[in-house]
Amino acid sequence: MRLTRRGFLGAAGGLVAGTALVGSGKRNPLNGARTASSAREDAIPFYGRHQAGITTPPQRCSSFAAFDVTTDRRQDLAGLLQRWTSVAANLCVGRTASPMRPSPDAVEPDSGAAIGLGPARLTVNFGFGPSLFGVGAADRFGLRDKWPMALVRLPRFDGDQLSAVGTGGDLTVHACADDPQVAFHAVRQLARTAGEDASIRWAQTGFNEAQAAGGTPRDLLGFKDGTVNPTTAAELDEFVWVGDGQDQEWMRDGTFLVVRRIRVQLDLWDAQTLATQERVIGRHKASGAPLGRRSELDSLDLDRRGPAGHLIIPPDAHVRLASPAENWAQMLLRRSYAYDNGASVPPAASGEADAQAALDAGLFFCAYQQNPRLAFIPIYTKLAGRDALRQFTTHTASAIAALPPGASGPGHWVGETLLG
Amino acid sequence: MRLTRRGFLGAAGGLVAGTALVGSGKRNPLNGARTASSAREDAIPFYGRHQAGITTPPQRCSSFAAFDVTTDRRQDLAGLLQRWTSVAANLCVGRTASPMRPSPDAVEPDSGAAIGLGPARLTVNFGFGPSLFGVGAADRFGLRDKWPMALVRLPRFDGDQLSAVGTGGDLTVHACADDPQVAFHAVRQLARTAGEDASIRWAQTGFNEAQAAGGTPRDLLGFKDGTVNPTTAAELDEFVWVGDGQDQEWMRDGTFLVVRRIRVQLDLWDAQTLATQERVIGRHKASGAPLGRRSELDSLDLDRRGPAGHLIIPPDAHVRLASPAENWAQMLLRRSYAYDNGASVPPAASGEADAQAALDAGLFFCAYQQNPRLAFIPIYTKLAGRDALRQFTTHTASAIAALPPGASGPGHWVGETLLG
Repeated sequence: MRLTRRGFLGAAGGLVAGTALVGSGKRNPLNGARTASSAREDAIPFYGRHQAGITTPPQRCSSFAAFDVTTDRRQDLAGLLQRWTSVAANLCVGRTASPMRPSPDAVEPDSGAAIGLGPARLTVNFGFGPSLFGVGAADRFGLRDKWPMALVRLPRFDGDQLSAVGTGGDLTVHACADDPQVAFHAVRQLARTAGEDASIRWAQTGFNEAQAAGGTPRDLLGFKDGTVNPTTAAELDEFVWVGDGQDQEWMRDGTFLVVRRIRVQLDLWDAQTLATQERVIGRHKASGAPLGRRSELDSLDLDRRGPAGHLIIPPDAHVRLASPAENWAQMLLRRSYAYDNGASVPPAASGEADAQAALDAGLFFCAYQQNPRLAFIPIYTKLAGRDALRQFTTHTASAIAALPPGASGPGHWVGETLLG
Repeated sequence: MRLTRRGFLGAAGGLVAGTALVGSGKRNPLNGARTASSAREDAIPFYGRHQAGITTPPQRCSSFAAFDVTTDRRQDLAGLLQRWTSVAANLCVGRTASPMRPSPDAVEPDSGAAIGLGPARLTVNFGFGPSLFGVGAADRFGLRDKWPMALVRLPRFDGDQLSAVGTGGDLTVHACADDPQVAFHAVRQLARTAGEDASIRWAQTGFNEAQAAGGTPRDLLGFKDGTVNPTTAAELDEFVWVGDGQDQEWMRDGTFLVVRRIRVQLDLWDAQTLATQERVIGRHKASGAPLGRRSELDSLDLDRRGPAGHLIIPPDAHVRLASPAENWAQMLLRRSYAYDNGASVPPAASGEADAQAALDAGLFFCAYQQNPRLAFIPIYTKLAGRDALRQFTTHTASAIAALPPGASGPGHWVGETLLG
């Protein structure tokens, strides 16, 4: 799957309009905190109809964590989400997790590690994994009848080599910010705030390159990351947000998140000729144009054939298989980060005695959608089997989560529509 | 050991003067490339008397890697260092590793992933581990008589829990830049450039918070990172650079690097009262002042006693044990980064059946010095046994390396003084 952020990056375009709708508060007159939070230029409103960090233009740093709930009491789970909401709302305006009590004999409620750094465009959103609803697990919280129909466990895809711990989780937390210490600090404070009610299961940090002025950024493959994302308010309503009557009522204005950590065999990729790389992706590397075209913004003509009758964009090219035209017009809102986990023996060579380490790096793929059963799962099932890019990639971590709607303002909390 | 960067950050102060000496080229009239490289405001000169990235004001992102040399031929090793020098010099001015040859049937010499990002203040420096000189290994390259006397293998310190692979290495590479993709790209291209001559052994990414205007930044402990670093040219000559006749002649104008990945048990630290944290560090958390003083810049008076006769800064406080006054006036030039490796079971709990994961984060400590036998080793031997902060930290990776002088200009290479 091609991991792209065009649309997020253009100064014009529908997403900006869509974001403005969320940011202006016009759609949600209940939100009393928004004006105050927006006063700082680098603050993204935490409260709103939708959770932040989904249509928000991507920040430079990402800190994702999945948690296991360690209590069996529904009221403890609700309390955890109330505390998390309060902490996140404070951090997103550049405050400490809760007000500091500078007394020598007190334990301070915040490590202080992000004091003075400002909001740094921090967003924090929360999600619920299938296990929270008793799917593949005991129904500890009596939530089975609230289980969203779109929240299925992901199947095992061709080629998956998921780490035993680096997958799933009852709860997901995703903090993104322009400062790595601010993003990490949020996850750290939320882990601490969980106390006895949840413990961290796995976590992954990511980064984006500084956004080049005017240019589409390149991914670790060296290609411009510039395929289509839903951007207009109409597209977001059609493909991303859960609408009235489309799933459980508590999920209205929410969305579903799929994350995949995709290790790229960079040395093998780098050893390919330019022509091979371009055939695998289906675009020209230098310009970003579809194969056979000149400009990055030229449309993707999947039926175009060369003089000998062959398809210009090969049958197994990544852009072909991932395009909405080949996927029942489904679209994912992708908002991915690069990751770099140092060096280790690649999964494919892990059984060999003389196996050498290689960089463990690639994409932390994040995709938002109205229904993974119609979007990520069928799209990636096809890609996992046929995408030419699959020769160079291994999925090593995975999670799926239902992201409920945002908290509409102070006094409300994320998860209230499910547990309130 | 307190990991600090004051002095780097102040707009005034001796380090700026010291850097200016390096940057202006006044001390090294041979360096013809400097003026050209400095033309871009965000380029740090690669060529110079000393390697860059040592006294350079810290960038936001760090990518460190250690390599094992996989050839036994001295000329291959020299060739590797020549190629690495060339690639690093190109990347540091914002070019690709070598010029691109846009031909469909050619393998491109650079992944293209950093095209358009500019130099982003990239620095790259190279170091030689003890094993390269046949210490604890075969003398494959006939370098035993060039072995620097200061380049000893680090002893096992109290409390070390080093990962088997995450330690040592024949060669070290450290890339720092203000853009994470630029820093990572450098290590990736250098790993590729190594070809059959070296393979990556371990790697670690790090980050700094965005530097707050006018304020001393805080570390993950929540304290201002503000203890003393050598900053003036005289201090750098005394404590950091290898002078004439002080070690092997090929190391003149070089230095020695010690890196340690220090995992911090953040949950345990966060559970301490403010008074306990301040006693452990020896400074006030909010102000950064030494205990009992008011201002961050007040001097550290280690002999000051309270009315009952007790030392105001406790005997096992980190700032006391790490201070030059307690260490034969030795100083380390510290240039550390925070790291975040996701979540895993802490080393201390790794044998327990019900052990829970926790954030694997802390400091990627980097210290430069003229002689580790007089600086890091005795200082940390004492700290490992007595520092109150040791209750909260575990060292999980380690390396020591001799960093030779810089390449003086195009046509010269890092390592030429040893292998040329």
